Order: sequence, then C-alpha cells, then structure tokens
Amino acid sequence: MTATSAKLPIPFIASAGYANSGHWIAALQLAMPHERIIAFSELSLAQKQQCQLAIVANPDPAELRSLPQLLWLHSVWAGVERLLSDLGTSDLKIVRLVDPQLATTMAEAVLAWVLYLHRDMPAYAGQQRQGLWQPRDYVKPQDKTVSLLGLGALGEAAALRLLAAGFKVCGWSRHPKNLENIDCYAGIAELPQILAKTDILVCLLPLTADTNNLLDADMLAALPEGAALINFARGAIVDDTALLAALDSNKLKHAVLDVFRQEPLAAEHAYWQHPQVTVLPHISAPTDMHTASAIVAANILEYRNSGTLPPTVDARRGY
Amino acid sequence: MTATSAKLPIPFIASAGYANSGHWIAALQLAMPHERIIAFSELSLAQKQQCQLAIVANPDPAELRSLPQLLWLHSVWAGVERLLSDLGTSDLKIVRLVDPQLATTMAEAVLAWVLYLHRDMPAYAGQQRQGLWQPRDYVKPQDKTVSLLGLGALGEAAALRLLAAGFKVCGWSRHPKNLENIDCYAGIAELPQILAKTDILVCLLPLTADTNNLLDADMLAALPEGAALINFARGAIVDDTALLAALDSNKLKHAVLDVFRQEPLAAEHAYWQHPQVTVLPHISAPTDMHTASAIVAANILEYRNSGTLPPTVDARRGY
Repeated sequence: MTATSAKLPIPFIASAGYANSGHWIAALQLAMPHERIIAFSELSLAQKQQCQLAIVANPDPAELRSLPQLLWLHSVWAGVERLLSDLGTSDLKIVRLVDPQLATTMAEAVLAWVLYLHRDMPAYAGQQRQGLWQPRDYVKPQDKTVSLLGLGALGEAAALRLLAAGFKVCGWSRHPKNLENIDCYAGIAELPQILAKTDILVCLLPLTADTNNLLDADMLAALPEGAALINFARGAIVDDTALLAALDSNKLKHAVLDVFRQEPLAAEHAYWQHPQVTVLPHISAPTDMHTASAIVAANILEYRNSGTLPPTVDARRGY
Repeated sequence: MTATSAKLPIPFIASAGYANSGHWIAALQLAMPHERIIAFSELSLAQKQQCQLAIVANPDPAELRSLPQLLWLHSVWAGVERLLSDLGTSDLKIVRLVDPQLATTMAEAVLAWVLYLHRDMPAYAGQQRQGLWQPRDYVKPQDKTVSLLGLGALGEAAALRLLAAGFKVCGWSRHPKNLENIDCYAGIAELPQILAKTDILVCLLPLTADTNNLLDADMLAALPEGAALINFARGAIVDDTALLAALDSNKLKHAVLDVFRQEPLAAEHAYWQHPQVTVLPHISAPTDMHTASAIVAANILEYRNSGTLPPTVDARRGY
C-alpha cells in the first residue's frame, strides 16, 4: 500500500437512518488515532475516487457503487448475508467481525434463555397473571438435552457454558466436528436424528442458501413433543408458518425469538401476542462498539503495514 | 441403641394435608430397606410409647407431643425455623437436611434469575405486551455486582456460578468469611456497605430472630437506585411494606420473590399483580426426594450403628 492510501480518510457507511453512526465513528476513531474515520457524506468527490477501504454496517449499495476504487469492506457485524446479497457478483472483499467478546455475550444469552426455559419462567409468568400458586415438576439439567445448530465460535462458546450448567449438549454443523463432551452430528441427513433427542433447540447458524427455511414443518416435526426453540441467528432460518402451527398444536412448548425475517417485527405479526412466544428485539449478543472497534483497528493496521487482509468472507459459503 | 429401637418403624410426620407424604414414604423406604417407614397415623399406641426417632416435614406439634420417648427428628427440609418455633424450649434434637444437590439446584436458580434480571427479561416481556421493539442498553456482567446475603453451602455454591458467569460477587455473612474472588462483609454494621455496592441482591439467609425483617426500609434505602432483589430464603426476612414502597418509587427496579410470610401467597396480595414483582411458588430449589432420602438414610444408618447423631440444629442460632 502506498503512503497516499494511508492518508485517505476511511468512511463509515451505514444503512439510511441508522441511529448509531456517530457513536461508531467516535469509537472507531478512538481505536485508530492514526487514521481518520468520517461519515460517507463527508467524503469529498476526490476522496470518493480514491477510496479503497470502508467500514460498514449494512451499507446502502448505491453508496458503495459510488466508490470506484473500493477493494474491501470491514463489517462491524458478524452476519453479512444482506451485504453479500446486495453486492451480488462483485469482487469486493468482505471482512466480517470476529469478536471473541461477541461469542462470550452470545454464550451468556444462550445460557440465560436456556435457563429461562429450563426453569419454566414463561409458565410461571402465566401463572402469576392468573394468581395461580402451583409448583411445577423440576427436571434436573442432567436429564435435559440442549442442541446447538451451528458449532462455530458462537456455538462452541455456548456449548461450554451449557455443559458447565449440567445439561447434556448435542451439536450440529455443516461439516463433521469432534468436540469434547458434545454429541456431534453433521450434515442435513443427520439433522432429524439430533432433533429427535432435543429438549431445547438453539439456532446459531449463519443464514445461507442452505439454511434458509431449514427449520420447516418436517424438521420441527422431528422434535419430541414439548420441545422448545431458541432462535438467536436469523429469522429466515425458521419457517414462521410451520413454527406457529407447531406451537398452536402444543408440539412445541415455547419459542424464544430474537431474530425475524423483517426487523423490527411488524406490529401485526402473530408472534407479538402469542403466549408461547417470547419476542426479543435482536438483543441476544449486542456488538460491543469498543471491542469491535479495537478488532477493526488491528485488522486495518495490519493491512496498512503489510497489505495483508484478514480472512475474508467466502461468498459461495456465505460466511 | 438397643435392638428393640432398631426394629420399631420410623414414622414420617408431615403437616396436615401435605400432598406428598406418600411419595416421601416410598422414597425413604426405598433408601432404607432395613427400616420400616410408615405414616404417623399407622403407629400403634405401643409404638407411639417407644418411638425415639421421626422423619418430618413441618410436622404438627401435637403429633410430636404424643411421642413421649422421642429423642430426635430428621427434617427432610433445610429450613427448620417453623419447627424450632413450634417446639419452643423442647430438648428434642433436630437434624436438618444438608444435601449437596440442594446447593447445586439453588445455585442454578440464583444464576437463572440473576441472568433474568441482568438480561432485562421483565422489561422485554413488558415491551412485548405493548408491541414495542426497543433494544435496551447492555451492561457486561463484569460491570455488575451481585451480592449474596448468606455464605453457607448455598451461598458459596451460588457465588461460584456467578463468578463463572463473569459477575463481580460480594458476600455477607454473620461471621467473617474469606472466600476467593468474593468481596466479603460480615455483621450487621457492614450490611449497609455491601448494599451500597450492589446491583442485584440475592437473599439466601436462614430465618432467625436476627434476620427477621432484616431487609427493612433503612436497609433497602442503602441499595443504589435501580437495584434489584431476589429472595430465595424466607419471606419474613423482607419487610413487605418497605419493599413495595421501594418498588413503587422506582428505587428498586424489580424483585423476584420465591418465598412469602404466608404461603401460598394470599390471592389479594399486591405482589401478584405488581409489574415489578416476579412471584414464584417456592420453587427455587425443590428438594430431590431421592437424593434427600439417601442422605436421611445414611444419617439413620450411622445412628443405628454407632448411636451418633449427625450435626443437630443450634436452637439459639436457628440453623
């Protein structure tokens, strides 16, 4: 890289109306005192002509297209399926956020909402509304199986927390994995097998062509009566109609949903008022701007010094 | 002990109308094949005259008084304050249940409801009822202090789980303790100090003359604005009027209450419908009949063999 490119400011490009751009620019600037981080709107025409690198949070594709020299993007988020779909066949390289803090926070969320289901908190809340004093049967974690779909950094961190809490843990991934004390399954053919053993199913998969609608009526039918679902990944992995039918027939006891096909969840959506659904506003693992900015800064410093990009997203695989 | 006493059946004596007596008798019998466990009502008059030992679950004091040779009671529960108060100045020795499984289950409950508060589940449930999509600020566990009142077997087990979850942990006990990675306080004089540092207060104290109404208006006032309370110990430790006032003024954000002065909680009690109160029907650490029966059986076997009683309750101390 030339000295010239090092001196160009780096634009932060977010979706229109994104409320936290100012906070991100401040946090990124703090983490990169030798760079200048600015909003897309502050780029001069000349700077747009030369800009090779941008930091992004679901950017408007039109703004990206106005940067003819753009080589790579650093996303401040881990999920980049929308960016990939917007970019189509572009050669632009994408670096997604891989933040160990994110895995820690997600593992905490998995543990928190697994315990929420394990300890029957939705049922006790219902009983409280009815003024009903009624202890429910307690089943030890040793007698419950929690299954993780997705055994990447997030899935592995979650599995360790669940094992420490005493649960039996199963895991499923695209390619076979071998993890200590976790009953591992791989590939679509083995998905019904793991589902059949599952009391609480936790979805942490990336959204790809293969995982879109993966949890459809057939797969949900493979779960035992009374199982529960936690989706902390992407809304489109679950077939909403099939999930509502499984809840209404009491095949599934409860669903904790943090992600939806459309976010915010539409006001009229059946999930909001469904007694067996806990709706969360995409908060399972909030990005920590400070740790995320430090990681983006380290990646950009390495690029400035050596010209080397961190691992980039495989557009075909989707993550 | 004589061979005669070994041959007498051991009565199980519960409060009038207790629904689980039959289950207890079966579980205890299974754990003690060489003893005969029977309901109080099945004791013959002759057996009543000789009976030295009973297994109890909040027994009717009149039934205990009808056993003139009674030397000791084994409670299947850990909390024996009602038994002590019923027995008054009697010389009867009481053995309370000390079950490591109980500490594990209680520690799980503490972790589960601390995470419930930490992850703002009550607020998100309120938002769902209103159809409100609103991510709330996330504060890492490293920046939150959970304080445990009571550092016995239950408190220590809970502290370890909270430390593993990343929280700062403080503890308070009657007499000074020194526990690794826990900021320990002791005695009534230091109680306001620990309260002032606390985000989530967890009460695991035994109910004694000293802890009755311990959390009164003054002590609750020592907590920081926005703190939360979990009471998994005994209802009488908290001044209900003071707690409701602290919630209504938003001094306290939320209370999770599993125990009450009167149980079941009276239908008209303000807690049932209070939006800042989670009412649980005394389920934080359900006794496991099987592990509890095994412990009672081991204690009775030791007594049969050597005449030695397990540690008995100090009536003055109250546990």
